[in-house]
Amino acid sequence: MNKVWDDLVARNQVAGYLDANLRGASQVFLQDNPWTGLMILAAIFWGAHAAGNLEVAFGAAAGLVISTFVAILLRADPASIQQGLFGFNGILVGAAIPTYLVSHPAMWVFLVIGAAVSTILTLAISNITQTWGVSGSTAPFIFTTQLLLLAASAFANVPLVPMQGAANAPAIWPSDGFDIVARSISQVHLIGNVVTGVLFLIAIAINSFRSAVFAVLGAIVSLVVAVGFGANSGAISAGLYGYSAVLTAIAVGAVLNRPSTGVTFYAIFAMIFTVIVQAALNTAMAPIGIPALTLPYVLTMWLFQLPKAERR
Amino acid sequence: MNKVWDDLVARNQVAGYLDANLRGASQVFLQDNPWTGLMILAAIFWGAHAAGNLEVAFGAAAGLVISTFVAILLRADPASIQQGLFGFNGILVGAAIPTYLVSHPAMWVFLVIGAAVSTILTLAISNITQTWGVSGSTAPFIFTTQLLLLAASAFANVPLVPMQGAANAPAIWPSDGFDIVARSISQVHLIGNVVTGVLFLIAIAINSFRSAVFAVLGAIVSLVVAVGFGANSGAISAGLYGYSAVLTAIAVGAVLNRPSTGVTFYAIFAMIFTVIVQAALNTAMAPIGIPALTLPYVLTMWLFQLPKAERR
Amino acid sequence: MNKVWDDLVARNQVAGYLDANLRGASQVFLQDNPWTGLMILAAIFWGAHAAGNLEVAFGAAAGLVISTFVAILLRADPASIQQGLFGFNGILVGAAIPTYLVSHPAMWVFLVIGAAVSTILTLAISNITQTWGVSGSTAPFIFTTQLLLLAASAFANVPLVPMQGAANAPAIWPSDGFDIVARSISQVHLIGNVVTGVLFLIAIAINSFRSAVFAVLGAIVSLVVAVGFGANSGAISAGLYGYSAVLTAIAVGAVLNRPSTGVTFYAIFAMIFTVIVQAALNTAMAPIGIPALTLPYVLTMWLFQLPKAERR
Repeated sequence: MNKVWDDLVARNQVAGYLDANLRGASQVFLQDNPWTGLMILAAIFWGAHAAGNLEVAFGAAAGLVISTFVAILLRADPASIQQGLFGFNGILVGAAIPTYLVSHPAMWVFLVIGAAVSTILTLAISNITQTWGVSGSTAPFIFTTQLLLLAASAFANVPLVPMQGAANAPAIWPSDGFDIVARSISQVHLIGNVVTGVLFLIAIAINSFRSAVFAVLGAIVSLVVAVGFGANSGAISAGLYGYSAVLTAIAVGAVLNRPSTGVTFYAIFAMIFTVIVQAALNTAMAPIGIPALTLPYVLTMWLFQLPKAERR
Repeated sequence: MNKVWDDLVARNQVAGYLDANLRGASQVFLQDNPWTGLMILAAIFWGAHAAGNLEVAFGAAAGLVISTFVAILLRADPASIQQGLFGFNGILVGAAIPTYLVSHPAMWVFLVIGAAVSTILTLAISNITQTWGVSGSTAPFIFTTQLLLLAASAFANVPLVPMQGAANAPAIWPSDGFDIVARSISQVHLIGNVVTGVLFLIAIAINSFRSAVFAVLGAIVSLVVAVGFGANSGAISAGLYGYSAVLTAIAVGAVLNRPSTGVTFYAIFAMIFTVIVQAALNTAMAPIGIPALTLPYVLTMWLFQLPKAERR
Repeated sequence: MNKVWDDLVARNQVAGYLDANLRGASQVFLQDNPWTGLMILAAIFWGAHAAGNLEVAFGAAAGLVISTFVAILLRADPASIQQGLFGFNGILVGAAIPTYLVSHPAMWVFLVIGAAVSTILTLAISNITQTWGVSGSTAPFIFTTQLLLLAASAFANVPLVPMQGAANAPAIWPSDGFDIVARSISQVHLIGNVVTGVLFLIAIAINSFRSAVFAVLGAIVSLVVAVGFGANSGAISAGLYGYSAVLTAIAVGAVLNRPSTGVTFYAIFAMIFTVIVQAALNTAMAPIGIPALTLPYVLTMWLFQLPKAERR
């Protein structure tokens, strides 16, 4: 099937554009595979449907195609476009805006602007971070979304969904482990749904089994650390202490460094530290009322990848 | 007249120093012309006089000459000094300090320190930003002034003018458009005065007609966007949603990129995004009570200029 | 004695590790001398004992050896390890954690994680800052500690010592000068003790007399400036307006630049500005309740050292 598809992509511009978008959906988990992306999109629609807010899924799809299209418009590097490196920030902006803004035409205006800006920011940030050999990762999504949400507070015609603090849910039991691990994986796309998490995991595994193993490891390590330090049990239960560590685990443990025992220990330490950064950013951002999104992952990934040049 | 003046500047050190300062006054709008600078200075004095706070104008003049003098003292690049590239941050610091601090000897101490630091910060920031081919722009003014204002909160002998939030003024009518556009241009120098705005515009036009057209375009686009999103009408009316977009328009649309239809659309999108960044920074800085100054412009300009290396 | 020790260090790994750690203790004051470091450690134990919180001293020692050990583990540059360039951030993390967190097993878990992360952050930050020829200085200590303290707010099992704002103590008299100068020097290691400050000063002087002179100058200048601007007298009296200026004075005036009259004036201006940055960061960080630590020094040092490339 891959060969047939690849041939089609090489010959047909529409198929090529579709392929770039599907790979963009998979790049959030640092995978480069259109079938992984297709399955992730399906899982997002399932999760959004289950939560009764399909706009999250339509927004994600819209953010994906807009950001990829803007990259073509700005004549960005074609190979990067094809690998989906402009779409993965757009899909996240597109999922985040309907999550935090009330359904309203102005919400869609913000979503379109945000998706377009995420591509410009991808170019700007990668121009800076490549100086030290690290990627911009999801930083364009984070900064774009945080700016849009802060702006919405000042705009009467762009209403925000009231932020509710995670309630301190009942104590967490070992039997809750499976669900929390799955939700931690699904929260990477701002969705708290067990089925979505399992589908994401399968989608990752069909491209890279090691990445899937580390995704689960990241979710487990972050769960143990968050419970151990006494983090808010409602937030833990929703997977909100896990999604950043899932990405750290895949990035540091499976994708960016050559596998070795040393790298595995280094990655586990990075997962532990991601939970601390998550808690820190939750505290730091509370006064201005914006979510940390995947910033704990991005900061930790930079922190643990930047020393490489020295370590070699 | 230009030739006579240029000859004098080449022969006479005092005229050279005066020329560098006048160009510094014009560089706030990214122009390099002593007559533009002279007219801008006159317009600042008019606006400060009209507002009954001449210290803003004397402070601006003092900031200008001090920052330029410190650049000479530190043996900065003579060509940059002559183009006024050290004065334009100093003039802005000098206008901002008497705007936000109560008239008092300590205010002048802060102003002198701030003007001197702005030159050191200009050297420091340009050393960093030139790595990626962008200028430091008004970042030295912004960071110096914000630091001084934050410090004043902790110093009993350096009293701050009480910050009043912009009241929600009556609704904005199309007939208010001209005044708001003019005030948006005048607010670049922290002055809300229609005559000053018109004089600024003429001063820009005598050096670069395209810059003047884009200044007006930036003011109009930001007005429409701010009204459309439902921003605070008092702030819009005072020109506070416009001054950053005016600078973005001049920078991205007229000065930093070669004119083309694509650049014009790119610049219009940058102006729209400047309004969002302005609203976002107003929200983000509210808990610590400092103004965003021209940071919305600088961030947007960096965002839209940094991809260039990739786009080529 | 130095020769005997150097021979031992060259032959014996344990002595080499001890030497690296002692130099690490001295590098906080930008000195590279094991005897200076030994005396500083002794002075820390004295100060912690006098304050009835010996965990600060044991924490400092633990942070020192852990961060140095992690640098060896990560195969960092051996010459840098030997000079103590990985230990000085660890010793500060180790002193800060027991200062701000309640004595508790989780406090020690945080301390160990923090010391290890400070080494990774030292590699990451120096990789960035060396692009412009400046050192990362104590930035790894600052960011690690601030992250850990912000995280502790969100963790029920990692209790924070309640932050008390510095009370406005009685007015400061010239006769208080000696004690405040000494406490300013001791506060570099988060200790407010006159004897510790005097011992620190002697320890610096046995390696570099000029550094000791500038340390005193930094403490005096910051005292005069803070009193003049009307800063909180309790904070001034505790040395909290002095420690950053002490480091700025040593760095800009004695270590990083070749001595000259110009450099001395430049350094004095840097000391004055450090006090303003200190006040500004105190204000800016109040809403999220974290201490500025030595960030005023690091920001000022970067600001005043970054222009160098241009000034030459």
